[in-house]
Amino acid sequence: MGEIPVIKAALLGAGTVGGGVYEILKRQWEEMPKKLGAFVEIKKILVRDKGKKREGMDSAQFTEEWKEILEDPEIQIVIELMGGIEPARTYLLEALQAGKHVVTANKDLLADYGRELLDMAAEHSCDLMFEAAVAGGIPIIRPLKQCLAANYITEVMGIVNGTTNYILTRMTLDKMEFSDALALALELGYAEADPTADVEGYDAGRKVAIMASIAFNSRVTFGDVFTEGITKITAADIAYADELNMVIKLLGVARNAEDGIEAGVYPMLIPKYHPLASVQDAFNAVFVHGDAVDDAMFLGRGAGRYPTASAVAGDIFEAVRNIQAGSTGRLGCTCYKNLRVKPADETSHCYFLRLQVEDRPGVLAGIASVFGNNNVSIAQVIQKNKRGELAELAVITERVLERHFKDSLLVLGEMSMIKEVSTILRVYA
Amino acid sequence: MGEIPVIKAALLGAGTVGGGVYEILKRQWEEMPKKLGAFVEIKKILVRDKGKKREGMDSAQFTEEWKEILEDPEIQIVIELMGGIEPARTYLLEALQAGKHVVTANKDLLADYGRELLDMAAEHSCDLMFEAAVAGGIPIIRPLKQCLAANYITEVMGIVNGTTNYILTRMTLDKMEFSDALALALELGYAEADPTADVEGYDAGRKVAIMASIAFNSRVTFGDVFTEGITKITAADIAYADELNMVIKLLGVARNAEDGIEAGVYPMLIPKYHPLASVQDAFNAVFVHGDAVDDAMFLGRGAGRYPTASAVAGDIFEAVRNIQAGSTGRLGCTCYKNLRVKPADETSHCYFLRLQVEDRPGVLAGIASVFGNNNVSIAQVIQKNKRGELAELAVITERVLERHFKDSLLVLGEMSMIKEVSTILRVYA
Repeated sequence: MGEIPVIKAALLGAGTVGGGVYEILKRQWEEMPKKLGAFVEIKKILVRDKGKKREGMDSAQFTEEWKEILEDPEIQIVIELMGGIEPARTYLLEALQAGKHVVTANKDLLADYGRELLDMAAEHSCDLMFEAAVAGGIPIIRPLKQCLAANYITEVMGIVNGTTNYILTRMTLDKMEFSDALALALELGYAEADPTADVEGYDAGRKVAIMASIAFNSRVTFGDVFTEGITKITAADIAYADELNMVIKLLGVARNAEDGIEAGVYPMLIPKYHPLASVQDAFNAVFVHGDAVDDAMFLGRGAGRYPTASAVAGDIFEAVRNIQAGSTGRLGCTCYKNLRVKPADETSHCYFLRLQVEDRPGVLAGIASVFGNNNVSIAQVIQKNKRGELAELAVITERVLERHFKDSLLVLGEMSMIKEVSTILRVYA
Repeated sequence: MGEIPVIKAALLGAGTVGGGVYEILKRQWEEMPKKLGAFVEIKKILVRDKGKKREGMDSAQFTEEWKEILEDPEIQIVIELMGGIEPARTYLLEALQAGKHVVTANKDLLADYGRELLDMAAEHSCDLMFEAAVAGGIPIIRPLKQCLAANYITEVMGIVNGTTNYILTRMTLDKMEFSDALALALELGYAEADPTADVEGYDAGRKVAIMASIAFNSRVTFGDVFTEGITKITAADIAYADELNMVIKLLGVARNAEDGIEAGVYPMLIPKYHPLASVQDAFNAVFVHGDAVDDAMFLGRGAGRYPTASAVAGDIFEAVRNIQAGSTGRLGCTCYKNLRVKPADETSHCYFLRLQVEDRPGVLAGIASVFGNNNVSIAQVIQKNKRGELAELAVITERVLERHFKDSLLVLGEMSMIKEVSTILRVYA
């Protein structure tokens, strides 16, 4: 056995995850020759301020100039952990063009510019890997692309945002209201100062776009994904769910139906016996249904320094193995179909709605006839909580077209006997 | 783009899973060019009786002669689904020697002859893949070898036998005794006529050997794995577990401790909040702990025609991709360490034991002093169910050496105040 080759890589970004990747590569140093047939070493680290000290990192490796990395022929792998669209997009396109392999955790970039980047990678026979972009440390991209490759996947859905799952868990277990649970999440560092992308479902939506693209072999972008957040969920809704033996989870759902792909993020009622129902706190989980494998679920930590670094480093190792085997780019873009993505109106769901209505005969009949006239079948009606002259009514529909359901709501909104529509939620069925 | 190559494969065995693989490859035919850059086609099928008709299969492909497959230079991939050690071992060694790639679901073979087969594969730069050998359709081998490759895995454990999980689920949910639940499993086809390999934990033990080898990068064989079955579990034990807020599961557990690997299969008490506790019926799940990823779990169907075929076909696709990329054998044996596997006596566990004792003062003190003298710390004692002059005592220990625990049992067995040791179980902690 000759000398063991040392493959050089560059890190773009030296934040939480970047530091984790750096550390894990060091920890694995002695394992590398046997595991990979080569060492992989960080040669340069792109930072904004190279004067700033970073625990455990060698400041001699810092550079503020992307060109120093791009033009270094020794650097074969670029690890992008800066986040955001630009300049990450430009850097990665340039890196691929220069024949450098790319590992990234950048879901924003992948969800919008996945095709462009994967095309560029293919053109230059480069690897472009992004296991960490969905569900942090949980293996999901590679299992879908490889282990489950012989399936027609009909559904992929999951809890892919830890912040909102933490908030909903606190609301469920500790009966907190949304604002208090959000404040707690902020205090504990589970939520960012501006929590919009998390609580409005945008972060989950990007992950849904990426997962759906891979599961269905057809490109889905963030713009194709309907998103609804959890800001309107109340403790009362959660108590109601509990009575129905369900919990409320923010689910990213993608279905491959006959007439097109449905992709959305919504708070949903899901039965307690479903494996996703017991995924607590900051854990993530992805549930897959395929024609051969039937149901499968992948659970783990969807964020955090080391779990995310685990996925990034796994990709780096894979790129090194491909470099050693001369097989870089062997598994590129798998979106070879051009399936239609349905607009939200054409998707179908079961709905739960909670109404405050006048407590008198004929109200239920009136509501039922509105639904009936709009092709909305009712599965279940629960009446309770009389409050003075008002009664609370909860209705669960069969799976109906969103358009039909919305039409019903328009009519219901005009009816004087209905004082308030308190909650509208989708139900997983 | 030139003509799309057709890669030929042979199937050894045309049973349940073989038929499933055959069918799935047909279903995926149109996807193959885009997914793999090639078609993969079954050319020959090794059967015992080629006169027997098999639904959906072309009898012109049947052969009773292994040599016809071995000596067919067109056949590049051999898919072994016969099971058992011989003649599978000889066939696969010959196939690899002839430069053919191998996909197998044969856990018995892998658990005992994994090294020999993987060495032969490496020598001939062949792929040898066995995703289906552990936990059926659930992706676990490839996630461990690739996605989690940058982790030091310290624990891998799971519910990897569907038959026993079905039996224990019925005993738990329907309060059945073991013999009745086994009879039901037989009736429903979840158990084989001779259920020994399942109920005694041998089947799970083979899977533990394979998982541990891959997780810890060091060879563990079936002979290294301690096995204890579920035949002695009673409805009373399960009721007791329930009171302690736990359930009893047959777990395959492998730990990579400082002083060596521990590998065993045992019925264990596990807290209800643990993700493995809610894995019901014939589902399997594997739980992994790594230094970077922290906890991760993989859940799905551990057996059955299509789920198993899903894993086999995923491996076939992967072999085809490697053939196309010229990278066969790129990911071979990863057992490059030579870690010691501890004998059972040196492993440590928390134990639960249920004793029938004389109901008089001093009994508890007597028992406690026996444990104390043998370095066994007690975590919890519960006294209940007076039955005439006898009382029932349940003891849970701290994590103690198996040797010390056994020494205590020898002394306890001699004590006249102890009428019976009804149950001894390990507790997951």
